[in-house]
Amino acid sequence: MTTEGLSITRSPEGIPSPATGARVVADDRAHLFHSWEAQGDVAPIPIAGAFGRYFWDYEGKRYLDFSSQFINTNIGHGHPKVVAAIKEQADRFCMIASTFANDKRGEAARLISEIAPGELSRVFFTNGGADANEHAVRMARLHTGRPKVLSAYRSYHGGTSTAISLTGDPRRWANENSANTTANVSHFFGPYLYRSHFHATTEEEECRRALAHLAEVIAFEGPDTIAAIVLESIVGTPGVLVPPPGYLAGVRELCDRHGIMFIADEVMSGFGRAGEWFAINAWGVTPDLLTFAKGVNSGYVPLGGVLLSEAVHETFRDSAYPGGLTYSGHPLACAAAVATITVMREEGMLENAARIGERVLGPGLREIAERHPSVGEVRGLGVFWAVELVRNRETREMLVPYAAGGAAARPVDEVVAACMESGMYPVWNYNRIHVVPPCSITEEEAWQGLAILDAALRHADKYTV
Amino acid sequence: MTTEGLSITRSPEGIPSPATGARVVADDRAHLFHSWEAQGDVAPIPIAGAFGRYFWDYEGKRYLDFSSQFINTNIGHGHPKVVAAIKEQADRFCMIASTFANDKRGEAARLISEIAPGELSRVFFTNGGADANEHAVRMARLHTGRPKVLSAYRSYHGGTSTAISLTGDPRRWANENSANTTANVSHFFGPYLYRSHFHATTEEEECRRALAHLAEVIAFEGPDTIAAIVLESIVGTPGVLVPPPGYLAGVRELCDRHGIMFIADEVMSGFGRAGEWFAINAWGVTPDLLTFAKGVNSGYVPLGGVLLSEAVHETFRDSAYPGGLTYSGHPLACAAAVATITVMREEGMLENAARIGERVLGPGLREIAERHPSVGEVRGLGVFWAVELVRNRETREMLVPYAAGGAAARPVDEVVAACMESGMYPVWNYNRIHVVPPCSITEEEAWQGLAILDAALRHADKYTV
Ligand SMILES: Cc1ncc(COP(=O)(O)O)c(C=O)c1O
Ligand SMILES: Cc1ncc(COP(=O)(O)O)c(C=O)c1O
Repeated sequence: MTTEGLSITRSPEGIPSPATGARVVADDRAHLFHSWEAQGDVAPIPIAGAFGRYFWDYEGKRYLDFSSQFINTNIGHGHPKVVAAIKEQADRFCMIASTFANDKRGEAARLISEIAPGELSRVFFTNGGADANEHAVRMARLHTGRPKVLSAYRSYHGGTSTAISLTGDPRRWANENSANTTANVSHFFGPYLYRSHFHATTEEEECRRALAHLAEVIAFEGPDTIAAIVLESIVGTPGVLVPPPGYLAGVRELCDRHGIMFIADEVMSGFGRAGEWFAINAWGVTPDLLTFAKGVNSGYVPLGGVLLSEAVHETFRDSAYPGGLTYSGHPLACAAAVATITVMREEGMLENAARIGERVLGPGLREIAERHPSVGEVRGLGVFWAVELVRNRETREMLVPYAAGGAAARPVDEVVAACMESGMYPVWNYNRIHVVPPCSITEEEAWQGLAILDAALRHADKYTV
Repeated sequence: MTTEGLSITRSPEGIPSPATGARVVADDRAHLFHSWEAQGDVAPIPIAGAFGRYFWDYEGKRYLDFSSQFINTNIGHGHPKVVAAIKEQADRFCMIASTFANDKRGEAARLISEIAPGELSRVFFTNGGADANEHAVRMARLHTGRPKVLSAYRSYHGGTSTAISLTGDPRRWANENSANTTANVSHFFGPYLYRSHFHATTEEEECRRALAHLAEVIAFEGPDTIAAIVLESIVGTPGVLVPPPGYLAGVRELCDRHGIMFIADEVMSGFGRAGEWFAINAWGVTPDLLTFAKGVNSGYVPLGGVLLSEAVHETFRDSAYPGGLTYSGHPLACAAAVATITVMREEGMLENAARIGERVLGPGLREIAERHPSVGEVRGLGVFWAVELVRNRETREMLVPYAAGGAAARPVDEVVAACMESGMYPVWNYNRIHVVPPCSITEEEAWQGLAILDAALRHADKYTV
């Protein structure tokens, strides 16, 4: 499979044309407002096509997708069976209001229930991850009758009001300047041995102390005021923080003790990313509510949702749930979800993701870590990995400071530019490079991407002291 | 075009089968959580197919769609050119992150800018209407540096936290029990002559007094504390309240005087519903921010967005906009928007909507009003009409009280049941029936639907005193 062949057959413009690319960028700069950016800084690459683990621009330059776009195209681009399912549903009808029953919507909910942890078997569909978290929190507040929600520093839960208030990364700050977004939200620290908030030296100690910290936060916030604890099962954007064994079970126990709802945010960690349907399955823990999006249909059509426990569902059996949205259970999105889950099963994509983690990304990244003084730690599992870059391995000083942009971000910007130059597109966040390819990636592709990263890291090494 | 023919060719199950329908409902009741409802009350009709202005169930029963689903399928179901555009884009690729430029995303933004009021020409894409309003309010707050937002009693702005706090209908109440959702939002009354808050007797007087009321609310809330006024250009769900001439211009003037951002919510009123691209165009007023969703691609793929003025855009030229979402500018959704706008232009759907309003729905509903003592008022334009039902024309007592459900809602429930029995599906809200078919409806179809409504209203007449 070559770029050229794909571009020619799959791009309606035929051979990618720089002139067309320039027109695409011109429309973008004249009319599009971009997320999270200063609009004056936006200089987007125009993308002409995408297939499998690759996408390419109008110059014919191809990128190995180590980002899965926004960590959502878990089955890769253009899977023929999912594309066929979308086309078939489009031929039937695209949209039927959620007041009606619809076959694909019901089937998607049933399939998601089958793979859900524990007895979770009720699904409320939303458009994406942020509104999934909005609704999960609302359900928890109404179910418990309590106002407060605890969430972690180092977390991202989405861009709408409640979701951004839960978020524990710098994207929350600017939203607090002019609106009362953080009412009834408190943040705590989760386990993160490499930069332990608890002065721990082993995973076991980190786990124990992180739980003691959380227990004390609960005690001082007032257990009876807390509706929910929201937690990414594996913390994604802030660093692929895999919880130590026992942590999530400990959170579950604290929640049970105090009648607090455990909301697992699996928007990024779900649907194969960690080699499991949901990352929390790896620890055998069942939350009360679980939110998902992204991988549920590989992002082919916008879709998110909430899985509810029977107990929470029961609260809304006789009294109306005060929330909703026009596109809840959109048939086209649900048809894509049914096909995606089916394809992931048929093609063993969870197993592949796990195997790629064990055979390639784990050993490969650990080897890279040995070779590069700028690499402080690599961690992850499945196709969900972070490379943490430091100025100095002893002090662990971050190569790019927390919340830094502009010139301070240069060391990582240079690594990213080198990766792109060599045809690999990663994810980056402050002092980290994340390696998050589709679950369908082959061993060969994964090795190729790692080789590019290996070479690019010499730019980070320059900045070590 | 008959139901049977369509069902057979367009349903993958072939002839609609009650057994399949039962399976679809079984999945729904086992696994799906529904918006705004007590889950125990949900008894959904399973829908097997939809085409043009019709959809049908698994018994082969066909409904004329006087609801446009959730008032979003403005071009009707299954438009071949939009379906083809979705299929073509699905063959190319479905999802490219919004960090990149993409042809359909840029083209959709350009087309929307072309039809936008005034100089609005920057588009931030979201997944639906609620998050469009979330982001518009955030932009206004950051642009002005002020915290407060004014919105109308009698309004609906969506189900996420900020959007529901803006909302002026009973769906807001339950959300205020356990979370601080209404921080920095105040509500005012808009013009509504039939139930004038201002004791007015003419449209002109209503307009003048409503503006005086708003001016006084602004004065007492403190002009320098107010970031934005959010207003549906034609208030949708709470009753198709068409503003009197001069009202929106007056709001614009108040905003200008105090440096307040005017946010026009065109989620329901936009894209042809009122016979205009945006309803506000009918009054020649330009807001600072305009939110849209639904009709932008007829709901074929979830999509919403915000149109920004140059001045607001300028605020985020050098400083990052603190908001975003995974699916901003989703290529599949944008391809559907490009095709929808093109088809609406080619087929003169705005003109058709306006004509249907003038030739059929206006005169037809006024005739119906004369015949039925239960009809207090009919109002609207284009394919955007409300029939307000009363117990008594003199007292104007609502046939179903505000915020009522259960037995109190029976009179309108009976009218709706009779419409459905006769094969027409309307929208209803408390004491009103809304007539909101696709913009592509034919005169004949519109007359047929009105005939069904006419007959059904005898159930409302029974309850008049
Ligand atoms: C863990 C997590 N939760 C929620 C979200 C928000 O999802 P969306 O962007 O679809 O609103 C994200 C997005 O990256 C996420 O990673
Ligand atoms: C005027 C208005 N604004 C916002 C919304 C919310 O849109 P969504 O349901 O897509 O979130 C609606 C939905 O009906 C609406 O009518």
